[in-house]
Amino acid sequence: MNKNYYAIIMAGGIGSRFWPISRTSYPKQFIDILGTGKTLIQNTYERFLTVCPKENIFVVTNEIYTDIVKAQLPDITDNQILTEPVMRNTAPCVAYGSFKIESLNRDAVIVVAPSDHLILNEKAFIETIEKSFTAAAENDCLITLGIKPSRPDTGYGYIQYTDESINSDFHKVKTFTEKPTVEIAKTFIQSGDFLWNAGIFVWSAKAIVKAFGSHLPDMNEIFAEARQFYNTPEEKSHIHQTYLQCTNISIDYGIMEKADNVFVLPAEFGWSDLGTWASIYELADKDYVGNAVIPSDKVIMYDSSNCMVNVPEGKLVIIQGLHDFIVVESNNTLLISPRDKEQSVKKIVADVKQQFGTKYI
Amino acid sequence: MNKNYYAIIMAGGIGSRFWPISRTSYPKQFIDILGTGKTLIQNTYERFLTVCPKENIFVVTNEIYTDIVKAQLPDITDNQILTEPVMRNTAPCVAYGSFKIESLNRDAVIVVAPSDHLILNEKAFIETIEKSFTAAAENDCLITLGIKPSRPDTGYGYIQYTDESINSDFHKVKTFTEKPTVEIAKTFIQSGDFLWNAGIFVWSAKAIVKAFGSHLPDMNEIFAEARQFYNTPEEKSHIHQTYLQCTNISIDYGIMEKADNVFVLPAEFGWSDLGTWASIYELADKDYVGNAVIPSDKVIMYDSSNCMVNVPEGKLVIIQGLHDFIVVESNNTLLISPRDKEQSVKKIVADVKQQFGTKYI
Repeated sequence: MNKNYYAIIMAGGIGSRFWPISRTSYPKQFIDILGTGKTLIQNTYERFLTVCPKENIFVVTNEIYTDIVKAQLPDITDNQILTEPVMRNTAPCVAYGSFKIESLNRDAVIVVAPSDHLILNEKAFIETIEKSFTAAAENDCLITLGIKPSRPDTGYGYIQYTDESINSDFHKVKTFTEKPTVEIAKTFIQSGDFLWNAGIFVWSAKAIVKAFGSHLPDMNEIFAEARQFYNTPEEKSHIHQTYLQCTNISIDYGIMEKADNVFVLPAEFGWSDLGTWASIYELADKDYVGNAVIPSDKVIMYDSSNCMVNVPEGKLVIIQGLHDFIVVESNNTLLISPRDKEQSVKKIVADVKQQFGTKYI
Repeated sequence: MNKNYYAIIMAGGIGSRFWPISRTSYPKQFIDILGTGKTLIQNTYERFLTVCPKENIFVVTNEIYTDIVKAQLPDITDNQILTEPVMRNTAPCVAYGSFKIESLNRDAVIVVAPSDHLILNEKAFIETIEKSFTAAAENDCLITLGIKPSRPDTGYGYIQYTDESINSDFHKVKTFTEKPTVEIAKTFIQSGDFLWNAGIFVWSAKAIVKAFGSHLPDMNEIFAEARQFYNTPEEKSHIHQTYLQCTNISIDYGIMEKADNVFVLPAEFGWSDLGTWASIYELADKDYVGNAVIPSDKVIMYDSSNCMVNVPEGKLVIIQGLHDFIVVESNNTLLISPRDKEQSVKKIVADVKQQFGTKYI
């Protein structure tokens, strides 16, 4: 296995769209949301074990999730867990991981990936990452993985690519479009040169450090100045002090949309960002009337169809005459909502927070 | 208070229509189903305290509920708790209570009432009972209370009465009709001489004992033979042996429909048999869009109307886009069902029993 290959797993999100299953104190990435027997971050970590040396896989997470990460990934060392004292979006997270890895190995090539996505075709994913590692090692480029869109989903970002390429595989990116309207999404799909932005990036440590210098110089300064502390006992306290000065900005907006050396690799590996209950529902096993039930042993449905039910183990649930709903219970909280109204879960969470404080969030 | 006045509270039912709130191990009568602060049997007992001496109130219940009765009605003595070893409908229950009371006091007049009904107007109820006690003491008659029907309810029994009366108040009964079709129920209401059968009876011990002798001679023999054991340490073991020989028959079918000295007292006292979730819903406090929620402090409804929600204290429930449903949770069991489908709860309970045994019943 190539000792220059590294992974940064981003695990700092709070997954509020999956409330009440996902809570601030125990968010989505740490949950076995599909009932597979492993949590999402465990699946993500294990995927990278096949391409990166074990000691080269780093997890960036919020300080408060440190113990959960240790419990779920017992093989990684404290030095591989990068903690953020506050949420600051993905750019600082990527900067922290990239500068730290660059301090360990100036020839590093890095894959950066969310901890909470689903990848069904692991073999295709690994091949995609290895091909990207090779290209990133040889070229001063920032690679993002683009998924061939199967529907005009308005929840995703879209990447428009050009014919200019590296090795015919990696296409120069023309535009990024975040969450378009359904009409625009349809034209994107018809045009044939748009891909979904999977939020999975590959680059050399050199290329991303250089990009921070060019496009986010303040952030570059913060993480460059910390070079003397990376991988030392002082790293954490220094980073926790300086992290507060970081702008809250995404890596897409802060770098990818500005840099002129961004390339997209069109890829297919059974990907879902598991961003909504709808996406979980799409992927779940369903009975012949479209009910997806986790766990299935104690839920009885009468005259009900196209429902997504996710309740605690051992709970008996009887549902009658319900169609196209989600019924989700976790942590003494029950949510019953039409499946197509799930975008309002974020608003509901805000209402609950206002009414009851953080107790149920 | 007249020392000849007695009450028999029937508390042996299992309340399966209120599953999962009501369970075989802890049925409806022992639950504060309306959220009033007292259980139904406690309310029933306290109502009779105003017309009967405390020591004259007897509870007939299944053996398995003895401890619940003692806990909920701490003032009654062991001799006032009559236990049935098996369920045998209301006739044996009434016979047991009546023969036992007759052994204590040959001049007793007795009111027999279910433990799980709602009576809103206690003053009118007490006046009705006192008037009936007086009539029953003076006449060899079997009195049943009839409620003026407010709707063509198909869940109730109907009593047709004649002009023949005692004191102009108590009308000779012409027919009993159990659970008519809605068309027949409508004609009953239009005719004006039908009342709902409340299942509350008043008679002298003499009159009811005589009626058992005439109409249920086998049962009469069983409970007459036991006279030497009533109110002695041997009562329970003797009754538990002989009870198994009793026919499973209701007092309505076994005696009231056959006797020719049955009179009905038309009465109004805010009565409901609380027989269905619909009846609970009718009586519950509702918000301006018709949602009735118990408890109300942690249930948030969005775009929902005419729902009945009854969940454990402290549980957070978010319901969106649901109309005319019941959402009931108790004992780790959740039921979601259209309000108008609640008649199927009995079938659901049977299915659950078949699939999981008695664990959830």
